Amino acid sequence: MSIYFNNAATTWPKPDCVARAMSDFLGSGGANLGRGTASARDLGTMDLVLECRERVARLLGGYENASPVYVTFTANVTESLNIVLKGFLKPGMRAVTTSMEHNAVTRPLRHLEKNGVELKILPCDRQGYLDPEKLAAALDAKKADLVVLSHCSNVCGSVQDLEAFAAVCRERSVRLVVDTAQTAGLIPLNAAALGLAALCFTGHKGLMGPQGMGGIVWQPEFARLCEPLVEGGTGSFSHVETQPEAMPDRFESGTGNLPGIAGLNAALKWIEERGVDAIRAHENELGSRFLAGLKKLDGLILYGLPEMVDKKRLSVFAVNFEGVDNGILAAELSSRGLETRPGLQCSPWGIGRWAVFHRGRCASVWAVSTPPLRSTKRCRSWPIHWRPYAPQSCRRNERAGKLIVPIPADTVCRDFFVRNVPRGTSATNVFRRRSGFGQVFCRNFCAVYTPFLLYSPHPCAIIRLRIK
Amino acid sequence: MSIYFNNAATTWPKPDCVARAMSDFLGSGGANLGRGTASARDLGTMDLVLECRERVARLLGGYENASPVYVTFTANVTESLNIVLKGFLKPGMRAVTTSMEHNAVTRPLRHLEKNGVELKILPCDRQGYLDPEKLAAALDAKKADLVVLSHCSNVCGSVQDLEAFAAVCRERSVRLVVDTAQTAGLIPLNAAALGLAALCFTGHKGLMGPQGMGGIVWQPEFARLCEPLVEGGTGSFSHVETQPEAMPDRFESGTGNLPGIAGLNAALKWIEERGVDAIRAHENELGSRFLAGLKKLDGLILYGLPEMVDKKRLSVFAVNFEGVDNGILAAELSSRGLETRPGLQCSPWGIGRWAVFHRGRCASVWAVSTPPLRSTKRCRSWPIHWRPYAPQSCRRNERAGKLIVPIPADTVCRDFFVRNVPRGTSATNVFRRRSGFGQVFCRNFCAVYTPFLLYSPHPCAIIRLRIK
Repeated sequence: MSIYFNNAATTWPKPDCVARAMSDFLGSGGANLGRGTASARDLGTMDLVLECRERVARLLGGYENASPVYVTFTANVTESLNIVLKGFLKPGMRAVTTSMEHNAVTRPLRHLEKNGVELKILPCDRQGYLDPEKLAAALDAKKADLVVLSHCSNVCGSVQDLEAFAAVCRERSVRLVVDTAQTAGLIPLNAAALGLAALCFTGHKGLMGPQGMGGIVWQPEFARLCEPLVEGGTGSFSHVETQPEAMPDRFESGTGNLPGIAGLNAALKWIEERGVDAIRAHENELGSRFLAGLKKLDGLILYGLPEMVDKKRLSVFAVNFEGVDNGILAAELSSRGLETRPGLQCSPWGIGRWAVFHRGRCASVWAVSTPPLRSTKRCRSWPIHWRPYAPQSCRRNERAGKLIVPIPADTVCRDFFVRNVPRGTSATNVFRRRSGFGQVFCRNFCAVYTPFLLYSPHPCAIIRLRIK
Repeated sequence: MSIYFNNAATTWPKPDCVARAMSDFLGSGGANLGRGTASARDLGTMDLVLECRERVARLLGGYENASPVYVTFTANVTESLNIVLKGFLKPGMRAVTTSMEHNAVTRPLRHLEKNGVELKILPCDRQGYLDPEKLAAALDAKKADLVVLSHCSNVCGSVQDLEAFAAVCRERSVRLVVDTAQTAGLIPLNAAALGLAALCFTGHKGLMGPQGMGGIVWQPEFARLCEPLVEGGTGSFSHVETQPEAMPDRFESGTGNLPGIAGLNAALKWIEERGVDAIRAHENELGSRFLAGLKKLDGLILYGLPEMVDKKRLSVFAVNFEGVDNGILAAELSSRGLETRPGLQCSPWGIGRWAVFHRGRCASVWAVSTPPLRSTKRCRSWPIHWRPYAPQSCRRNERAGKLIVPIPADTVCRDFFVRNVPRGTSATNVFRRRSGFGQVFCRNFCAVYTPFLLYSPHPCAIIRLRIK
């Protein structure tokens, strides 16, 4: 039995209704959207997609009385943010953001900066918060066209004061775009009431839907100003050779992820039945217990707000242990059934803020996100078993020089010693650089990490390859 | 019982293994890709995604001995084409395409043309084919940077001579991008052997996977030259603020459609077991019978090659009937359980070629795609019942002035008479224009069509709204 602590990456398990709705769609529905006539199955697909848009608009506060027309679907929140940022920001414009952003915001912004968009990054404090006064001062000092920020850090769980930020932006007529990847489904949101230009969401985290679904809740005027990133067949206005202006088609070209919409729709219904506040209350309770247990550990470094304060933090925790690399720690925990996530969490700015990155002591932070909706039975088990083996056993592995994660019995393994590795590089990235490939291809590689990398005067790593 | 003839829009039903694989992934797998440690579930996701890339590379002829590294996933073939066209074509470059393209090609190209890309559209013949000699002559007359074309028309099923086009482009060192939306899974393809710069595919048609999945098979060098459309977290190289160069991460930001990958992987396995040639032989047989039946009908206008010739056409048929609007015909057939697709098929260029669009006789053609893998029992039923009711009953409706599709019993309907409708506009588009919205929201609208639109001296339409 494993305990899943990686809900900030994707929630698991999903409610049973999600997979069932997807199967039902493929089996008895299955028609494409707006590419047929008006058969029962065609109408079924139209109804399904409309229903899902309506649920999103109700939950996240869609414009024009929660109209489904201004909800568009994407593959994930990263695509949503790219559509909004690249669709709106033109050379000469100025964007303001914070130092706690995910690469979903930072990478498009750095790209736009290279093409002539001015970028201002406001530093958050050591707990991951930005003071709304600082945003106001920055906007008063120099006019900006757009502010984009993450509602909650995916690293340390700090929830920004969105109401205050929205007021600051509204008063100055600056458009505000919010990345709700961690908060949608856990904190009540109302895009229209806040006057957001766009609320970007993902379906597979707090919204409990399948991976592959995300979207945007649009301010109608802002939607008109944004140029679509992807153009093509919309099943509408087909005689026009340019992308239609009509919503939601403008931002939805090609056949959409209809099974994904079926799954997200079922997940949203499940959330409606429980209520966002009840879900968060449960998560807060688990988070408090987790935090209390964490604090009893020797050598712990906790980043972010050290207490559970409702609506100030979610149960995403970033921790390190003095002298132990978090990659080793996480792999060791994984081999004992505790699933966490080591590494930079796709958020180098936030982690850089804590000066733990490139310091040579640990390459990154270790994020643990408590399961928002798991049975308490499973969660109860962790604090008891936590302390005895976590840092200690990792120190043993550290001495041995390498750490090996469980691999199937029929696998032949071979270790490779890699020299001249830049200090602070994770073993995964060592492998990537040497092989020239990005994603780790697990059939040839298993996540082995070596502390040589961090402590040796001549940085090096051992990579264990699996040969099947 | 209905008979589904809309497989060019999306195939249905999918093999049972597709929905099962998606459910299994969500239930017992469910881990994100490259965002955890190396738990059994993390490795399971890595294995799944790798396996699916390998199957795509084997089936579609991936580069470097069918390496999975150069297969990237997208939401659909439209996104694939946008990534390739917008990633590669810069102002001052020249692109060549054909007159049979889908809006997935035409809309991005028209957008790029506005931004300084030169565009040359080569006219196909009346059956939808382009002579490779004409491409050679066009490239010899003026150098081009890229040729993009659809392997098979989604309107009339004409399959281009891809080998000849690829040879023409190779000899002139011009990059060739192919849209295989209709052919992948039905015609053997080998991107590397043909030397294609990129092979764009969709997962939910001939590949029998779920909607929401598509991808690109890349020539490695071409991938390096293309700028990614979407940037963000890749779970790799997180310390770098710009998009990684490494494949496949470069073109896959944010959490991917993992249940979709599970579904596509199962579908590809299902195709491997049957073989592409056997599937096409079955489709050819059904297509021949369909065509033989079609030709017996009075007043039929058939577009495209009038015979089934293996590898020269697929079973996608475009037809009209003299004096009957195809929207009416399709809706009438739909009410009797025959599911087809009227309209412009997202391909205005191809339909414009036949001069049937804006002629005032019919607003579009009517495409029928035989089910490639349905039980023959179901398909056998159509020719018998075809003739007695199709055009005749539609003529009755035409006289009545409107056509009403079946709507649930608890629905109140109200008809609206709409004046000053431009000739040749479908009722769906009338509704869209008047409401200002794109997609038809079926809860308020049912697909009503009126021939007033086409024959009246004062163009007008009747729209039937459903009020629940």
